[in-house]
Amino acid sequence: MKATLMYGAGDVRVEDVPDPVIQQPTDALVRITTSCVCGSDLHPYGSMSPESGPVRMGHEFLGVVEETGAEVSTLKAGDLVVAPFAFSDGTCAFCREGLHTSCVHGGFWDGLEQEGGQAEAIRVPLADGTLAKLPVEPDSALAPSLLTLSDVFGTGYHAAVSGGVDAGTSVAVVGDGAVGLLAVLSAKLLGAEQIILMGRHKVRTDLGREFGATDVVAERGDEGIERVRELTRGEGAHVVLEAVGYRPAYEQSYGIVRPGGTISRVGVPQYEEAPVGFGSLFGGNITLTGGPAPTRAYIDTLLPRVLDGTVDPGKVFDRTVGIDQVPDGYRAMADREALNVLVTP
Amino acid sequence: MKATLMYGAGDVRVEDVPDPVIQQPTDALVRITTSCVCGSDLHPYGSMSPESGPVRMGHEFLGVVEETGAEVSTLKAGDLVVAPFAFSDGTCAFCREGLHTSCVHGGFWDGLEQEGGQAEAIRVPLADGTLAKLPVEPDSALAPSLLTLSDVFGTGYHAAVSGGVDAGTSVAVVGDGAVGLLAVLSAKLLGAEQIILMGRHKVRTDLGREFGATDVVAERGDEGIERVRELTRGEGAHVVLEAVGYRPAYEQSYGIVRPGGTISRVGVPQYEEAPVGFGSLFGGNITLTGGPAPTRAYIDTLLPRVLDGTVDPGKVFDRTVGIDQVPDGYRAMADREALNVLVTP
Repeated sequence: MKATLMYGAGDVRVEDVPDPVIQQPTDALVRITTSCVCGSDLHPYGSMSPESGPVRMGHEFLGVVEETGAEVSTLKAGDLVVAPFAFSDGTCAFCREGLHTSCVHGGFWDGLEQEGGQAEAIRVPLADGTLAKLPVEPDSALAPSLLTLSDVFGTGYHAAVSGGVDAGTSVAVVGDGAVGLLAVLSAKLLGAEQIILMGRHKVRTDLGREFGATDVVAERGDEGIERVRELTRGEGAHVVLEAVGYRPAYEQSYGIVRPGGTISRVGVPQYEEAPVGFGSLFGGNITLTGGPAPTRAYIDTLLPRVLDGTVDPGKVFDRTVGIDQVPDGYRAMADREALNVLVTP
Repeated sequence: MKATLMYGAGDVRVEDVPDPVIQQPTDALVRITTSCVCGSDLHPYGSMSPESGPVRMGHEFLGVVEETGAEVSTLKAGDLVVAPFAFSDGTCAFCREGLHTSCVHGGFWDGLEQEGGQAEAIRVPLADGTLAKLPVEPDSALAPSLLTLSDVFGTGYHAAVSGGVDAGTSVAVVGDGAVGLLAVLSAKLLGAEQIILMGRHKVRTDLGREFGATDVVAERGDEGIERVRELTRGEGAHVVLEAVGYRPAYEQSYGIVRPGGTISRVGVPQYEEAPVGFGSLFGGNITLTGGPAPTRAYIDTLLPRVLDGTVDPGKVFDRTVGIDQVPDGYRAMADREALNVLVTP
C-alpha cells in the first residue's frame, strides 16, 4: 500500500510499504477513507534532521474496519470509524477519567514505527478503546467535519474546557491555524460572549469570525497586548487559548491574560523552558493548563453537534489532495497557501 | 519608634525611625502588638546586595488602631486588627472576586519605603479594605494563631484552594516551613484523606503529622519521586502544594504530580524560567497555578476556625523575641534553630 514518510525537514515522500497485519488480538485493520496533514506535522517539516528519519506520518483518520483481532468486541468489518490522535485502552484509571492521552497502555501514532494515518490502511492497537463508530457512510459530506474529531476540533475544545470557558469569561485565542479557529468555535459552543482571535491571515480570521470570534487582533507583541487590553477594560482576557506551540505565542499569552486568569495551551510546545516566575505567571495568580487533548473523550459530546449540523468544523479544510499529492499538501500548508489539507487516499 | 531594617544579606538592624503619620484620608495608624519574621524574609536575608538597602522589613502584624484618616469608616481607635501581607481597597473588580493581591489600588508592604511590620507602629493605606477587626483582646492567647491569618495560614490555604483540594484528592506538600505545614492543615480542613509531607526536619514534620499529614517523605529528587509514587498507586499526587520557592522544589513538584493533576505554588519563585514543555507539564496535562495569596479574602473563612479552636496554626511559632532581638530571630530561622519567630514589640 501507499504511505507517507518524512525523511527530514521539507522532505516528504509517498512510498509503497507492506500492508499492515493484525499483531495483537486487540488490533483492528482499517482502510483509510479520509485523513489530513496537521499543523503539528509542520513542526518536523520545518526542523527534522535526516538522521531522525524516515518516519511514517499522519495521526488523524476516518476509515472502514476491514478485520478485527479475536478480542475486539465492539467493532466489526464494514464499520466506519474515527480515530483520535492517541490510542488508548478505554478502561484504565486515566481513560475512565477522560484523560485518554495518559492511558497506561496507550500511546501516540508516532510511537508506532510502522503505522501512520497518511496512508491507505493502518493497524489500530486497542481498537475497542481507541475507535469510535460513526453512523454515516464513508462518502458522507460530513466526512471532513467528522475527521476534525480526530484532533483539531477535539484539541480546540480541550483548550476551551481546560481553560474553564463559560458564558462569564472573556476569551482570547492565540493562533489562527485550524486548532485556533476551532478553539474559537469551541469557546462559542461553551457560551463565551467575547472571543478575541489573534491572527493576521484574513482568510483565516474571517473563518474565525464565522465560527464566533467577536474581535480580531492582527497586532503581536506589545501592540497586541495593548489591543487586547483595550478590548477587555484594561484587564486582559479571563482565558487565553494558546494554539501555536512556539515560545512567542506563550509570551503573548501571559501578556494578555487577566490577573487570576488561565492560559490553556494545546499547541505542542517547541520549547522546554519558559518564564513562570513573579513577572509572568506567579505575580498575577495566572493558571497554566492544557496538554495533548484526550480527543477520544470529547467525541461523545461533539459528534452529535456535527451530525445535526450545529457546527461545521470541516470548514478548516480548504484543499483536498490524493495520497500521491501529500508532499505538495505539506508544502502548501508550510507556505500558508492552504489552511488545512484533506487527504483522500 | 523602633523598626527593623535590612542593609543586605545577613545584616538586619533595629533602629530608631520617625513615627508614622496619617498621609491619606484612607490611612490608619496602628500600634503593632504582634508581628513575626517570615520564611520569605529569608530570601533577601540570604542574597540581598547592600546597594538595594536599607529597606524596612515585616509584612505581617496584629495591632491596635490609634488614629484613622477622615475617610476611614469601619475602624476606630482601640480596635484590634490583623493586616494581610498586601493592602487593598476591597472594592475594585479584583477585590470583589477575592483576588486582593491584584487590587488596582493596592500593593505589598515592601512597596512602601517607610513602613514595615517588624516595628512598633505602622501606617496602613486603604485601611477599610485592608484591615480586619478581631473580637479579642491584644493579649489574647490566640494572638499567634490570629497572626497567621496575615500570611502563612492564608497562604497555605490559598495553595490548597487554588489546587482544588477536596475529599477525593491525594495531596503532596513540598516544604516543611510554616507555609508548608499550614498547607497540610488547610488540605486537612478541605477534606483530603491522603496528605504526604515532603520534608526532613523531624520537629517540623512531627508538627505536620499533628496538622494532618498521613505520610512523611524525607527523600528528595528521584528517590523522593519514587517514594511519593509508591504511596499513590504509582500514579503521583492529584495536587502538589509547593511551599518553598526554589527551583528544585518546582522540579520535585512536576516529578510527583499525577497526570491531569495540579501543582499549586505559593512559595515566591526565586527563579523566572523553568521547565513547562512536553516533558514536565504539557505531556501529562499538568496544571500550574497559585501566586501571592489574597489572604484578606480568606480571613472570613479562617477566623472562625481559629476563634473556636478547631485549628491552632500558631503552633508554627516556636520562638518569641522582643523588637530588639529581631536580628537574632532572622539568624535563628536561617540556621533552622527556629521554625518561625514571633515578635512582640
